[in-house]
Amino acid sequence: MKHILLSLGMAATAVTAWGAETLTSPDGKMKMEFDLVAGGIPQYSLSLDGKQIIAPSRLGFKLLKVGDLTDGFKVLSVDTASVDETWKPVWGEESEIRNNYKEMKVALQQPSTKHRMDIRFRIFNDGLGFRYEFPQQKKLAHFTIEDEITEFAMTGDHEAYWIPADYETQEYDYTRSRLSEIRENMHEAWTHHNSWEGLVSPTGVQTALMMKTDDGTYINLHEAALVDYPAMHLELNDTTNVFKALLNPDADGYMAVMHTDCVTPWRTVIASKDARDILASRITLNLNDPCKIEDTSWIKPMKYVGVWWEMITGKSKWSYTNDLPNVHIDRPEDYLTVKPHGRHGATTENVKRYIDFAAEHGFDGVLVEGWNIGWEDWSNRFKDEVFDFVTPYPDFNLPEIREYAKAKGVEMIMHHETSSSIRNYERRMDEAYKFMKDNGYNAVKSGYVGFILPRGSKHYSQWSVNHYQYAVEKAADYKIMVNAHEAVRPTGLCRTWPNLIGNESARGTEYQAFGGSKPSHTTILPFTRLIGGPMDYTPGIFEMDISKINPKNKSWVNTTLANQLSLYVTMSSPLQMAADFPENYERFMDAFQFIKDVALDWDKSWYLEAEPMEYLTVARKEKGADRWFVGGTNGETPREAVVDFSFLPKGKYKVTVYRDGKDAHYRNNPQSYVVETKTVTNKSKMKVYTAAGGGFAMTVLPEEK
Amino acid sequence: MKHILLSLGMAATAVTAWGAETLTSPDGKMKMEFDLVAGGIPQYSLSLDGKQIIAPSRLGFKLLKVGDLTDGFKVLSVDTASVDETWKPVWGEESEIRNNYKEMKVALQQPSTKHRMDIRFRIFNDGLGFRYEFPQQKKLAHFTIEDEITEFAMTGDHEAYWIPADYETQEYDYTRSRLSEIRENMHEAWTHHNSWEGLVSPTGVQTALMMKTDDGTYINLHEAALVDYPAMHLELNDTTNVFKALLNPDADGYMAVMHTDCVTPWRTVIASKDARDILASRITLNLNDPCKIEDTSWIKPMKYVGVWWEMITGKSKWSYTNDLPNVHIDRPEDYLTVKPHGRHGATTENVKRYIDFAAEHGFDGVLVEGWNIGWEDWSNRFKDEVFDFVTPYPDFNLPEIREYAKAKGVEMIMHHETSSSIRNYERRMDEAYKFMKDNGYNAVKSGYVGFILPRGSKHYSQWSVNHYQYAVEKAADYKIMVNAHEAVRPTGLCRTWPNLIGNESARGTEYQAFGGSKPSHTTILPFTRLIGGPMDYTPGIFEMDISKINPKNKSWVNTTLANQLSLYVTMSSPLQMAADFPENYERFMDAFQFIKDVALDWDKSWYLEAEPMEYLTVARKEKGADRWFVGGTNGETPREAVVDFSFLPKGKYKVTVYRDGKDAHYRNNPQSYVVETKTVTNKSKMKVYTAAGGGFAMTVLPEEK
Repeated sequence: MKHILLSLGMAATAVTAWGAETLTSPDGKMKMEFDLVAGGIPQYSLSLDGKQIIAPSRLGFKLLKVGDLTDGFKVLSVDTASVDETWKPVWGEESEIRNNYKEMKVALQQPSTKHRMDIRFRIFNDGLGFRYEFPQQKKLAHFTIEDEITEFAMTGDHEAYWIPADYETQEYDYTRSRLSEIRENMHEAWTHHNSWEGLVSPTGVQTALMMKTDDGTYINLHEAALVDYPAMHLELNDTTNVFKALLNPDADGYMAVMHTDCVTPWRTVIASKDARDILASRITLNLNDPCKIEDTSWIKPMKYVGVWWEMITGKSKWSYTNDLPNVHIDRPEDYLTVKPHGRHGATTENVKRYIDFAAEHGFDGVLVEGWNIGWEDWSNRFKDEVFDFVTPYPDFNLPEIREYAKAKGVEMIMHHETSSSIRNYERRMDEAYKFMKDNGYNAVKSGYVGFILPRGSKHYSQWSVNHYQYAVEKAADYKIMVNAHEAVRPTGLCRTWPNLIGNESARGTEYQAFGGSKPSHTTILPFTRLIGGPMDYTPGIFEMDISKINPKNKSWVNTTLANQLSLYVTMSSPLQMAADFPENYERFMDAFQFIKDVALDWDKSWYLEAEPMEYLTVARKEKGADRWFVGGTNGETPREAVVDFSFLPKGKYKVTVYRDGKDAHYRNNPQSYVVETKTVTNKSKMKVYTAAGGGFAMTVLPEEK
Repeated sequence: MKHILLSLGMAATAVTAWGAETLTSPDGKMKMEFDLVAGGIPQYSLSLDGKQIIAPSRLGFKLLKVGDLTDGFKVLSVDTASVDETWKPVWGEESEIRNNYKEMKVALQQPSTKHRMDIRFRIFNDGLGFRYEFPQQKKLAHFTIEDEITEFAMTGDHEAYWIPADYETQEYDYTRSRLSEIRENMHEAWTHHNSWEGLVSPTGVQTALMMKTDDGTYINLHEAALVDYPAMHLELNDTTNVFKALLNPDADGYMAVMHTDCVTPWRTVIASKDARDILASRITLNLNDPCKIEDTSWIKPMKYVGVWWEMITGKSKWSYTNDLPNVHIDRPEDYLTVKPHGRHGATTENVKRYIDFAAEHGFDGVLVEGWNIGWEDWSNRFKDEVFDFVTPYPDFNLPEIREYAKAKGVEMIMHHETSSSIRNYERRMDEAYKFMKDNGYNAVKSGYVGFILPRGSKHYSQWSVNHYQYAVEKAADYKIMVNAHEAVRPTGLCRTWPNLIGNESARGTEYQAFGGSKPSHTTILPFTRLIGGPMDYTPGIFEMDISKINPKNKSWVNTTLANQLSLYVTMSSPLQMAADFPENYERFMDAFQFIKDVALDWDKSWYLEAEPMEYLTVARKEKGADRWFVGGTNGETPREAVVDFSFLPKGKYKVTVYRDGKDAHYRNNPQSYVVETKTVTNKSKMKVYTAAGGGFAMTVLPEEK
């Protein structure tokens, strides 16, 4: 099935007299220079069209006890290769992905210690990836990384779109500022936080970090293939504009334990004069290993509804009773003598209502949170045995629901909130996954809310990263798809493990019920969070006034209804939720039609317009069908989007447009929208008004002959 | 099967005007007083025969954030009970154990916080146990213990037999000193250490702590039923002679996370004017829950030999090759291309030799260490996936060995060294246990050498303690017996989980090959380490000059040969190893006969003579057989032991005596011993000379009529 065009040009040379080595992208526009400078310090730089975008930047590590890998290196050899292949993802924005790069592996040695460290660079037309590789070696069989000193030296005081570095959460609103203004904006950026997080550095930011230079070059810094290594934040030296890797430490303050041979994740730089190229880049996926699951037939995109928004808004609760100050998970009988508080969301009756709705409108699945015992005291108590993942609440009749859903052709989606009690989850994982399969569940939403247990292990430490991966790989053994929330942000691992069909790992729709997110939020996420993989953003909120759901909750969803529709296209994911209540969809059935229609998997995507934190317009062709969908998401400033239909084949097409009304505004009039149909060809361009916090969506079908 | 004589006298009273409450032992000699003093501070004291042995001592906890449980208490109620029952252990020093105590539960409340804390005291004729109990309560559903302030106030500057408090190891030689001399002796006491430990406190010591007062009262402080809580060390205020609980912290410096209802382990004080009563005390077992394993028929004492001492002495190695600087456990094929170093101990051929020897001499089992891949870089590298527990080395033919042992009627004992990579072990535990059962292994020796992973979790933290218990309980599911080395010292949990047939948790025989232990070492262990449960001490070394085994190893086994024999009786354990080589036993077959004969399980035990760090003489009757065994272990000073045979029923008995020769000495002439037979009745008293580091053993059989 895979078409691989591989052209390899290997050149291994024992280098004695050493000068700078250069590596140029296939199209010749991107150029990386590697050199050993004063005293054997490895450094690299990167330029685009002859202009430096990464100034000379150091590479290496500080190690515990055994001597640093920072300087005193000599080059042993330089190997180069050239690859041009295409591969087919199981799902995604394209059904075929081209992987075209030139590679250089620089083998280094520290003569003083005999330590070996290689650096592998891969340059693509749209950017650079590099990683450290440590061959198996007697003198450096195991080591502990105290600090990774990898630098990304910026060439100016760029505009950046950033969230604070944090070892416990990624769920921030974005701040746009000059690099030089990060420090002064940090406190404000950080104040919208959850309870368990801590400020890491006054100039620390998370990846994927998006930037724009004064001459209009877009630069994105992230990582690929984060496996058994801490996540990388970036710390800015705001005197020099140099970013340095800021890894997530372990309990003792060390970063990572390595045993050779081994490799780090790839550090990535995506860059272009055109912001749309950042969205179109496949560097992150391409730097990951090919799929390791042999039979992927059980991995299927899913559109789902669920018992979720009602708990998020505070209308109902995950818990069952107020009478248990805490739950002993080994005493489920405690629930039989308590009084239910009457606001439990995951009741058999309520779930059936969602199953009915899913079946009626063609949804694949129903997620139910709060179905299992333990929610009375689940979060941030450092409680070890917090959930058992197999015992339903007394009012959740699992067999009845299972049979009901089956009869209606709807799949139930399991929910495993771990409360970050990772050991408890691992101990019960086999039983939990087996329980799922025994009851017909093929997908799980997992959650890692609150402090990681044991104390000292943060959310993005090597220890925790290792666990998230373990959960995904073990799920694959059971043919289970995983949608992990609060896990480390994705780095393209869904190429290797396509059963990882979703992650949260950023500020999702739930924050619209926790006080709201910025209207521009979803115009930056595709440039940042989505660089690593799809997000279970859970869009589709039609009722913006949360107080109508729960009078005590004064939150407001800071988007228009049409904006919500756009997200199903602009925030590509094989897993999409329609997050609002059935009764809210029933009020706007013409708009809801788009959510029913929109595809989840694509043959091809076109990024028509894009400016980070301002707007983006994306068109996509459904995989294996002649249906196109267009989404345009707008930020704070009203504007006219332009859809150029040249992506269409010849012929006439009927376009159903779902757009903001002229008087729409995310704050005052979010439910003002227009549904209209038009006819276009691939010569057409259509202007579409998008309001503040607005957007639009389109379904494009060939006109019937 | 269980004979329970239970007499309960419950008296629940709501106390308003409060005075000291007293609790008196069944025989009236031991008396505990509890009081709330200035500002509602709970304290207790303990006296024996009218003389205080624990002066007024504080009780309570410092908690994280929610207010301390140290003072401001009032008494809600006092409940008393009286229990006299007997129960039958699955194995042990007696086949019936009497549990006779008076109990008082003091229910406390802090009116200012509404927090509830109860203290349950149980007073026995030979001591006191108390624990904290926290009822389920809304105001204190979960809490984190910052410090346990439980005190044990000594009434004088007692002599103490102690090892330094340490969060990572218990494998110390003992120091005898006044309490006031602990500080000045700490550094010397601590220097005989392994690589990973750290000094916890200049006056910190481990439990079980043995002491002797100037008026000849023996006092032992320990704990019982340590479950899901950190182990307790003791820190001395050497101005006041007050010990305070010193718990093992987690990575963040906190001690324990609790969620109510819950209890702490029991804190125990065993005391008597007669040192032998300390050995005879069953307080630790009695304070543990009854057996939780329904069918215990698969739990069987075992006498074993093994491929072990040759690695300990350095004659052979656990590892297979020098060619792998480190092992990737997922690449067992790496072993197929390397050169074996030729000193691997666990070869098929060598193991068969041990099986032959075991079969010939009636041993139950053969332990083999180093059978599985991973030993090339197993320890202290913070390596996560260090062993897989299922993959043998290329030269260990597991099926062949399995069938060979089976044919010879010998059981193989599995070895699971975890290298303290606890998560790795838990992830692989089901597979590892299943692999054992599939291959006929019913017992496992587990090991926890080196730093605990993840970093920050020490060996005796709540986190680690929880793991050791998990491993034992999961083993019980598989009907597997556990002998855990380097795990937390036992606290009588073998009553509840009798598949925990052994622990190391102290300085074992191996240290005789690591530079030697004090000749008195095994005269103190029964007063300290063995208070909590049996030790897999691995006695039976006949060749004391280690350089004869490995010329590079200048260690000397600091005991006589007869002393080695004595340990099979004085260090009672259902699991006993004959640790030396077959060829060494073959040189001394007359002495070896005792190891072949000695029983592992007992109907009754008599502690004939005892003085900590000096000597002890113990007689035991084999369970279900008319065979008695006597052991006398001596310390540094030569002496004449006296065996009073009044424990025997009427009749004549043939005694085979294995004793030191007159010229025996642990350093100069350890292999000087005499085997002789005598006839005795229960009126006989026999004097037996014991050399420096010496001892004796006896087999006592009814004379054939």
